[in-house]
Amino acid sequence: MKHEIISIGTIRTPFTKIEGMPVQTVGGEGVKGEIHIKDEYAEGLKDLEQFSHLQLIFIFHKTYKTKLKVKPFLADEHHGVFSTFSPIRPNHLGSSIVKLNGVEGNVLHIENLDILDNTPLVDIKPYVPHLYDPTVRNLETGWFENKDVKSQRAGSRFI
Amino acid sequence: MKHEIISIGTIRTPFTKIEGMPVQTVGGEGVKGEIHIKDEYAEGLKDLEQFSHLQLIFIFHKTYKTKLKVKPFLADEHHGVFSTFSPIRPNHLGSSIVKLNGVEGNVLHIENLDILDNTPLVDIKPYVPHLYDPTVRNLETGWFENKDVKSQRAGSRFI
Repeated sequence: MKHEIISIGTIRTPFTKIEGMPVQTVGGEGVKGEIHIKDEYAEGLKDLEQFSHLQLIFIFHKTYKTKLKVKPFLADEHHGVFSTFSPIRPNHLGSSIVKLNGVEGNVLHIENLDILDNTPLVDIKPYVPHLYDPTVRNLETGWFENKDVKSQRAGSRFI
Repeated sequence: MKHEIISIGTIRTPFTKIEGMPVQTVGGEGVKGEIHIKDEYAEGLKDLEQFSHLQLIFIFHKTYKTKLKVKPFLADEHHGVFSTFSPIRPNHLGSSIVKLNGVEGNVLHIENLDILDNTPLVDIKPYVPHLYDPTVRNLETGWFENKDVKSQRAGSRFI
C-alpha cells in the first residue's frame, strides 16, 4: 500500500545544517522558530492557541537513504531503526513535541526545537498527554537509559 | 511538495468498525492486538523488546475526506482540525502510544488500543518521554480540559 502525503507548511529554525544540531527536544530547549502554514490550511488552526504544546509530524527532507540497523549519535552500537529516532528509517517521518508561544495568522511561534530549517510539516496535533498517560505504567526505555541526550549534538554521519 | 509513504505492516485489533470504538488510548485500556511487520522490515525490530511502550504512526485508512473545521465526538462545537485528533485531517495520519507486551519474530503483541483493525502502519518509534518531558511546563490542553475521554465512544459521523 502506498499513500501520498503533502506538506501543510514549513518549519523555520536556526539549524541550517545537521552537524551540531541537538538530537532531541531536551537538547533544543529554548531554541525558537516559526511554522509557516500554507494559506489553504490556515482555517484548520482555529483554537490551536488554546494549547501550550503541540505534536508536529514532519518529513526528514535531507535524508535520502533508509537502513534497518543504525548507529544513532547517542549509541555505541547498532540498533534496529524502529528502536531509535534515526531519520534514515522507512518513510523518513519525524515527530516532535514543541512549545507553542503564539499564533499570528498562519504563523505559529514555537520553541524547544531539534528540527532542521525548512523542514516540510505534514501534521499538527495538540499535545494532550492525559489521553494516554494513565495507560503508561512501569515505563522501560531500553538503551536510552542513562544517555546524556541533552548535551549530545549531531555529527555528520547522516549527511 | 509531495512525499510517498508505504506501509511497513498491519495493526490487528478487535475493532472492525468505527462505531463504538474508543476515541483515545485511555478508552482502549486493556484492549489487546498485534502488529504484523512485513518480512522486509523485520530486521528493523532489533532491540524493540527493550521498550515497554511504543509510538505508532499509521494511516486512517477508512477516512476518505478532509475538513479543516471538524466537530470531534468529544466536542459540542467545531474546532480547527489541527486542534483535534479527528481522522478527517490533511494526510490522514494517526499517532498512538501503546504498550508493548512482547515481540515474536515479526509479530508485536500490543495493548491499550484505540485503532481500527487492519490499519496500515507507517512507523514505530520507542516511547521515551524523558526526551521532551523536561521541556513541558505549565501545560495547557484547551478544549480537552474536563472532557470524559475514557468513556467516550465513536459514533457514525465519520463513516
